[in-house]
Amino acid sequence: MSCAAVVSPTSAGTVSFDTWAAERAERFEAAAQRMLPLAAAVPQRLHEAMRYAVLDGGKRVRPLLVFAGGEVTGAEDEALDRAALAVEYVHAYSLAHDDMPCMDNDVLRRGKPTVHVAFDEATAMLAGDALQAEAFKVLAEGTLPAAQAASLMRELAQASGTTGMCGGQAIDLAAVGNMNMTFADLERMHRMKTGALLKASVLMGALSGQAPLLTECTREALARYGDAIGLAFQVVDDILDVESTSADLGKTAGKDAAHGKPTYVSVLGMEAAKAWSLRLRAQALEALNGLGARATRLRELADFMVCRSH
Amino acid sequence: MSCAAVVSPTSAGTVSFDTWAAERAERFEAAAQRMLPLAAAVPQRLHEAMRYAVLDGGKRVRPLLVFAGGEVTGAEDEALDRAALAVEYVHAYSLAHDDMPCMDNDVLRRGKPTVHVAFDEATAMLAGDALQAEAFKVLAEGTLPAAQAASLMRELAQASGTTGMCGGQAIDLAAVGNMNMTFADLERMHRMKTGALLKASVLMGALSGQAPLLTECTREALARYGDAIGLAFQVVDDILDVESTSADLGKTAGKDAAHGKPTYVSVLGMEAAKAWSLRLRAQALEALNGLGARATRLRELADFMVCRSH
Repeated sequence: MSCAAVVSPTSAGTVSFDTWAAERAERFEAAAQRMLPLAAAVPQRLHEAMRYAVLDGGKRVRPLLVFAGGEVTGAEDEALDRAALAVEYVHAYSLAHDDMPCMDNDVLRRGKPTVHVAFDEATAMLAGDALQAEAFKVLAEGTLPAAQAASLMRELAQASGTTGMCGGQAIDLAAVGNMNMTFADLERMHRMKTGALLKASVLMGALSGQAPLLTECTREALARYGDAIGLAFQVVDDILDVESTSADLGKTAGKDAAHGKPTYVSVLGMEAAKAWSLRLRAQALEALNGLGARATRLRELADFMVCRSH
Repeated sequence: MSCAAVVSPTSAGTVSFDTWAAERAERFEAAAQRMLPLAAAVPQRLHEAMRYAVLDGGKRVRPLLVFAGGEVTGAEDEALDRAALAVEYVHAYSLAHDDMPCMDNDVLRRGKPTVHVAFDEATAMLAGDALQAEAFKVLAEGTLPAAQAASLMRELAQASGTTGMCGGQAIDLAAVGNMNMTFADLERMHRMKTGALLKASVLMGALSGQAPLLTECTREALARYGDAIGLAFQVVDDILDVESTSADLGKTAGKDAAHGKPTYVSVLGMEAAKAWSLRLRAQALEALNGLGARATRLRELADFMVCRSH
């Protein structure tokens, strides 16, 4: 992918994207360490599994989208911590459940044994269940005004249930072995399965800030950005699943093909999939046109998500 | 159990408890039929499983507690519908997950095949996950003021996660085979596993009504009622697990003993367990002393929950 051609504008006086992203990821990790149930508290094994599922892993794309979305509306770090934890808890719970034998039966995730391998199936299921509750709890117990807290919880619930992540996952299950899936079907599935939570991350960041800065127009721009980048992320995932090794990915490579799952690569072909990822990135950037320097990190994140190698 | 000794005061002009409960259960069923994702909508199989897990089953104790709690603060029916759906969705998801092979591996529930038997394991897990999200969604999309909606979601999250239902379930898992569990350990486990959501049901009903009627004192009284009745319900469950048949219960009888799980009966003995259930009922009724006729349905529910035969 020719990613170098796009120049990310960086506002004067701010740190580079890499430095910003590293600092935000570190901030997220510290917040998660602090706010997840303690491993020493009863029930210990459940808490250990919840911490194992969340800590020390992944690119933290969703938390970064929350923090970048928060820059658009001048959100406070403490509020963004909670929104970032909430989306990452939901993401982590979905991975713990998806990896179980009755679903994808995967043993490697983020370079570590999956939760049911490191613990056991019952604990993995329960840790996932508890993480979903914890996601809403961390939003409910924050200090934002109730109207904002309620809108964050609404956004998260809509993105993670049957109209979003779980619904997409169910369509994915039904699609196994269906190599005749159309592009439109595939797009719809991914819009729900991964796109909805990525989009919600951006919006929840923005919803955590100053309400007057989140005009209807700004909200729509962020939604369009989230839609495009949410799909682009999945297209790149499908490309990397073919072109990368398990060691690079930190998870089992080539498993979609092995499971008979339709992907962007199997439906479009590799070259067209790469072109589609760049087109979606362009759509994402275009959506931010009116937002000026407040959206710098979101622009940089679009590049980061499309040009990554793992 | 000598339940007939306790007279439930019924306020003049109101219908009998049985009539009230039947009408409320019917109302709940209609709301669930209407508000659950449609079986005809994509992803159909997921929606069918969600509906199967919730509809046409159970005593609806939690919804009844919501409606009875709402009488204390004059809550509107439409708001109570949503609170009732939310707690029952959480209850239904926990049953679908608990019945799976990696947990209790049960095949019969509410007189029907369990969700993973009627569908498959992946769908049962996903339907449970989606029902938990749906529980928060149904609260988030209601018409109550944001402060009330947020407090309902906080209550539900705290009752269902690691500090409540999931945490209790994890302690339960760890307790299998431990027939030396103390009474205090058992009480703590059940306070979390089943008590927290039963107590939350009462409070969420009350929180759905007129805020000025929910004074700190009233809230504390309802919490004490919820604590006591939440435990009493489990004591009676343990008694019925020994004394009833599977046909009466609509689920596999005697399974706790078969699984080597400590119960109130195994820890206290049958007679002491029965005495303890009556003591808890008395505590529940005592907590309502200051609430007058507004708490009539809660008093009747305490009797219903302790004196049931299934």
